[in-house]
Amino acid sequence: MLSTAAQLQKGQEYLLAENHEDLENGEKAGLSKALLDRLALNEKRVQGMIRACHEIAALPDPVGRVYDMVVRPEGLRVGRMRVPIGVIGIIYEARPNVTIEASTLCLKSGNAVILRGGSNAFFSNMALVAILKKALAENSVNENLISYIESTDRSAIDEMVVQDDLIHLIIPRGGEGLIRAVAEKSRIPVLKHFKGVCHVYVHKNANLAMALPITVNAKVQRPAVCNAIETLLVDKAIADDFMPAVLQELFAHGVEIRGCEKTRRYSEQVKPAAENDWTEEYLDLVLAVKIVDDLDQAIDHINRYGSAHTDTIVTENIHAAEKFVKNVDSSSVLVNASTRLADGGIYGLGAEIGISTDKLHARGPMGLEELTTYKWIVYGEGHLRS
Amino acid sequence: MLSTAAQLQKGQEYLLAENHEDLENGEKAGLSKALLDRLALNEKRVQGMIRACHEIAALPDPVGRVYDMVVRPEGLRVGRMRVPIGVIGIIYEARPNVTIEASTLCLKSGNAVILRGGSNAFFSNMALVAILKKALAENSVNENLISYIESTDRSAIDEMVVQDDLIHLIIPRGGEGLIRAVAEKSRIPVLKHFKGVCHVYVHKNANLAMALPITVNAKVQRPAVCNAIETLLVDKAIADDFMPAVLQELFAHGVEIRGCEKTRRYSEQVKPAAENDWTEEYLDLVLAVKIVDDLDQAIDHINRYGSAHTDTIVTENIHAAEKFVKNVDSSSVLVNASTRLADGGIYGLGAEIGISTDKLHARGPMGLEELTTYKWIVYGEGHLRS
Repeated sequence: MLSTAAQLQKGQEYLLAENHEDLENGEKAGLSKALLDRLALNEKRVQGMIRACHEIAALPDPVGRVYDMVVRPEGLRVGRMRVPIGVIGIIYEARPNVTIEASTLCLKSGNAVILRGGSNAFFSNMALVAILKKALAENSVNENLISYIESTDRSAIDEMVVQDDLIHLIIPRGGEGLIRAVAEKSRIPVLKHFKGVCHVYVHKNANLAMALPITVNAKVQRPAVCNAIETLLVDKAIADDFMPAVLQELFAHGVEIRGCEKTRRYSEQVKPAAENDWTEEYLDLVLAVKIVDDLDQAIDHINRYGSAHTDTIVTENIHAAEKFVKNVDSSSVLVNASTRLADGGIYGLGAEIGISTDKLHARGPMGLEELTTYKWIVYGEGHLRS
Repeated sequence: MLSTAAQLQKGQEYLLAENHEDLENGEKAGLSKALLDRLALNEKRVQGMIRACHEIAALPDPVGRVYDMVVRPEGLRVGRMRVPIGVIGIIYEARPNVTIEASTLCLKSGNAVILRGGSNAFFSNMALVAILKKALAENSVNENLISYIESTDRSAIDEMVVQDDLIHLIIPRGGEGLIRAVAEKSRIPVLKHFKGVCHVYVHKNANLAMALPITVNAKVQRPAVCNAIETLLVDKAIADDFMPAVLQELFAHGVEIRGCEKTRRYSEQVKPAAENDWTEEYLDLVLAVKIVDDLDQAIDHINRYGSAHTDTIVTENIHAAEKFVKNVDSSSVLVNASTRLADGGIYGLGAEIGISTDKLHARGPMGLEELTTYKWIVYGEGHLRS
C-alpha cells in the first residue's frame, strides 16, 4: 500500500495526462457535467488517493485472526480463522479513485482483484493499474493479483459474471441500473447496494430539541448520498409541537416538502405526497413527510416502503427505542442519532468497500473483514469418529 | 418445537400411512432400493425426528444476541445484533426428515420457510407439513411461517428461485445435479454443498501409530458421506514404513485402492489411478493414494484436485501443521484428527442445516447462527454528522 502511495506520487504527472485524455473524449462524447466531474482527477484528488493508501496500510491485517476457539468435550480444539475470499471482481463506473481504493482493500485482505471500470475512465484506469502493478513488482509480489478487463464492451461484463469457477465474489459499484444488470446475470455471489430510502421517526416521547437537528442533519448535510433521509415520520401526539418548527427549518435550508394530508395542514408550502413518494430515493433537497398514529405504524411504514438501509428513532423512551431496534428490518438501526452516521469509518471499520443492502455475508458498511471469509480449524490428538 | 414433537407423536399413525402411499407409488415407479430406503419412515425414524425437535428446542436462541458493541471516540455506541434472514427456501429430494429438521431450524432462528420436497415423498411431506402447521396453530403462531410448494413440476423450482423480492436465501439439499440446476437459475443467494473430495496427508514427521487409525476411520467409518476421504497422500520419506501397514489394513476393510505408480510398488492389488481419480467423489470403499515429495506438493495437490471441503494433516511437527492449516483452502482443515469429525454437532453448533462448500456467508457446517444475519445498532445522544 505504501509502495502504491509512492508510485502514485511519482506517476502523478503521467496519470493526470491520461486522465486529461479521458476528459477530452468525454467532452466530445457529450458527457454530463456531473459525470465529467466524477471522472476528473487533479492534484488534490490524487493526494486523496495517496492518503487512502496510507490509511488502509495502517489498518490491522484481517487475515489469520483465530476466533471462537473452544475445547470440545472430547478434547478436540475447534475454532475459526479469517482467510481471504479468493478472487474478487469489481465492476464500477467512472470514478477512477475506485481503482485504487478497491484494489488496495482487496489486496490488504489477501484477495486477488479483477477490475472492470467504466469505458469513460479507460485511460485513467490503465494508468492507475500500471501504477498498482509497479508497486506489486517492487515488492516481488505477483503482478497478476491485480488485473483489469480492457474490453470496454458491455458483453465483457456478461462473460465475467458467469465465471463462477474463477471468481468468488462480485462487487458492483455504481447506479442501480448497473447493479441490477450485474445481479440478474451473475452466477457468482454479488454484494449489492441498491438504494437508500432512509427515515427519521420522531416518537411521541422525543426530545424535540434533539429531533430537530437530527432531522435537518439527516436531510441536508449531504442530500445526494445513500444514508441521507428521504422520509420523515412524525408521531401525531407531538405533531403540533414539532411540525411548525421542523418545516420552517427545512424550508430555510431550501428543502421541498411532500407531505401527507395531515402534514399539509401545517403549511401551504407543503406539496401533496403521492404513493410513490414513500419509496423514492430523491438524493436531493426533497423530503416526504408523514404523520403517523404511533410507533407500530412507523415501524410498518419503514418495513413496507423503506429500502432496509438506515433508519433512526428519536425518543427518550427506552421501550420504544428497543421495540424500534428489534423490529425495523434495516442494515443500520439508530437511536437518537442522524442516519448520516451509518458509515464504515464512523463504525470503526477503518475503510469501506461499500454499503451492502443484502442480507447474506455482509450487511451495511463493509470493511476489510467483510472481504474475508473463514475456515474451521481443528486440532486433535488422533481423534476418530465413532 | 416441543409442540411439533408432540404432534409428531400424535400423528404418527397417519404419517406412516401416508408414507406407505409414497412407498407404494415409488415401487410402482421403479425407484431404486437406495431411494426407497431414504424415503421410508418407520417408528424408529419418527422417534429420530421427535428427538431432533427436542434437541433443537434446547439450543440457545440465536436471535437478538448483541455483540462487538463498542463506544466510538465521539461517544456513539455501535454494535451488531443477530436477526433472522427472512424467508428461506429449502429445495430437497426424497428424505422426509428434512421437512421436519429444516423447518424447525428455520423457525428456531426466526425465519419463515418455503419447502419444496421431492415428488416421491409428496404424501409424507404433506402429512409432515400438516403436523408442523398444527403445532404452530397450537401456539397461536401464523401458520404461513411454513409453506409447502405442492406442485411436483420441476418448473415450480425455476419460478421459485427468481423470486428475489420474496425469498432471501435458498438452501438446496440433495445430489449435485439438483444443486447445480438450482444455483444456475437462482437470482436468490444459494448456500450450496457440492462434493466432498477430502484428503488425509501423512507428513514425514507423522506418528504412524496415529496416522493409521485416522486414515482407516476417515475412509471406512461411513464411506458414503461427504467428509469421508477419497484420497490419501503419503510423504515419500515415510512411505516405506507406512504403506505396507496402511494398505494391509485398508484391504482388510475391503477398500479398493487406486494408486500412483510409486504406490503400486507396495502391492500388486493396487489398481492404477487415472487423472480423474484425484477429483472423484467415490462415496464408496474406494481410495486414491498418492505418494508426494513433501508438504508443499501435498498442499498443492489438495488445493488443485480437492473440493475445498475437509482435509487433514497427520504430523508431530508444529511448523508443518501451521503451514498446512494456513495454506489449505478448505472449509475445515484438521490436524491429527479424522476428517469424519467435520460436523456441526461435533463442532458445537448443536444441529446442522447442512455443510456449505461456498465461501460467502457460511462455510463448512452450518448451524442456527448461519441461518441468521445481523444488523448494525447504534445509540447516540443527538449525534450528528459534521
